Amino acid sequence: MSFPLLGRHNERVKLIRALHTAAGRERIGCFLAEGPRVVSELLHSAFPVRLLLCRAREEHYWSELAAAAVKNGAEVYEAEEQLLEQLSPAKTSQGVLAVAELPSYTWEHLLSCARIVVLEGIQDPGNVGTLLRSARAFGFAGALCLGGADPFNARAVRSSAGAVFALPILRFSAGGEISEWLKPLQKGGFALITAVAHGGVSLPQTTFPNRAALLLGAEVSGVSAEASGAAAVEVTIPLEGNCESLNVAVAGSVLMYEMSRRVITDFN
Amino acid sequence: MSFPLLGRHNERVKLIRALHTAAGRERIGCFLAEGPRVVSELLHSAFPVRLLLCRAREEHYWSELAAAAVKNGAEVYEAEEQLLEQLSPAKTSQGVLAVAELPSYTWEHLLSCARIVVLEGIQDPGNVGTLLRSARAFGFAGALCLGGADPFNARAVRSSAGAVFALPILRFSAGGEISEWLKPLQKGGFALITAVAHGGVSLPQTTFPNRAALLLGAEVSGVSAEASGAAAVEVTIPLEGNCESLNVAVAGSVLMYEMSRRVITDFN
Repeated sequence: MSFPLLGRHNERVKLIRALHTAAGRERIGCFLAEGPRVVSELLHSAFPVRLLLCRAREEHYWSELAAAAVKNGAEVYEAEEQLLEQLSPAKTSQGVLAVAELPSYTWEHLLSCARIVVLEGIQDPGNVGTLLRSARAFGFAGALCLGGADPFNARAVRSSAGAVFALPILRFSAGGEISEWLKPLQKGGFALITAVAHGGVSLPQTTFPNRAALLLGAEVSGVSAEASGAAAVEVTIPLEGNCESLNVAVAGSVLMYEMSRRVITDFN
Repeated sequence: MSFPLLGRHNERVKLIRALHTAAGRERIGCFLAEGPRVVSELLHSAFPVRLLLCRAREEHYWSELAAAAVKNGAEVYEAEEQLLEQLSPAKTSQGVLAVAELPSYTWEHLLSCARIVVLEGIQDPGNVGTLLRSARAFGFAGALCLGGADPFNARAVRSSAGAVFALPILRFSAGGEISEWLKPLQKGGFALITAVAHGGVSLPQTTFPNRAALLLGAEVSGVSAEASGAAAVEVTIPLEGNCESLNVAVAGSVLMYEMSRRVITDFN
């Protein structure tokens, strides 16, 4: 099975290039997934895939993904190494790239979750993806992104190990009114828990409500004063002597693990 | 206070370039620290600093670090933007760069720790640095690196948030005999705990010995069969339904948190 070769003047080249930026993704309503593992996760998800692009003369290697893409209704093209490298959002292309449609979730999706995670201004796409991966692993069934890195940035998608295809994610732009997301959250019965590096209730001593939204603040500046003011509980992970803080993806994951563990314990 | 300008033919340029590779660092016995936060942590540590390089015409900005470096016995140079970018191990220089001496630790340093972490073939320098940062935060007082990314790679140093300056770290090259590090560990009374994605004792049900070495395996391949065979306990973090695994830095950090929490509980 062989597929048409993508020429460098094909309109799809321009489309893929545009998807490298958050603005382009929003305008077009699509995003990129790069590498065999991520593309395979995508093709096993419910997301509509529009285009699959494979390295030329490697049909044997990509035949399984190509067949799944065709079944999914996607176009399949091959690309010469040089063009593929230009179009890949990764430093070095892993030989396969997909264009898929951005999902559109509503509050209803989020309100059906018992626990969700709120990412407030987290800048590093790797941290955003890793936190979504942990959220999924620890039973946080949805996410709210308030500014920060786009969860559909290719690096976030990769770091999420498929979680962006599994969790409903609502997004709000930075600098909006807190009531925009806080009111629906509170109306939905979620208690807001914020994670703070110092001065909160020590994690082993914290009692968590069953319906909770865990808010994690930006890497350096932490939780905003506004979100902090709205918190039902502020929680701190106890650290040894000289240690200032944890990586935000680690801190958030430890908190989600601990909250999930307590639920498990409650049911035993 | 102004400092000599580093010319591009100065021998120090060649030295700094060589420190970009693990082989160069080993040969010269030095490593690079990049950016104001990391350099400040370095200058507050016990590590001998040989050289500080600051962006030219920014004396006002770097005067505090430069004064600390001079006190530390280091040479201080300024560099033009373009040269600094070439010498910086980061994608974009943050304006300050230091050369420090690699430490030399022995088993004695490690054997004085109650708990240590063992990183087996972890390839991503960010993961190695993040794990060392978490180790320090959760009272794991030393580390063993078996192959994998060099903990003195500049990205690992940055991700560690100062932990590489605080923890004794012993390193063994990949592919050596397991007895090389396992024998001294066992002789020192450490029980080997390995983290496995599936099939180990569930983390909430695991009992940890007080003197423990927690071994984390490579990102994709996991713990080696050899290390697995030597483990006193294999532990698994319970995950929700469809979820395959966690990021290795997250998994290791959750395990270290849980182990530290139990020690705290034991003492209360």
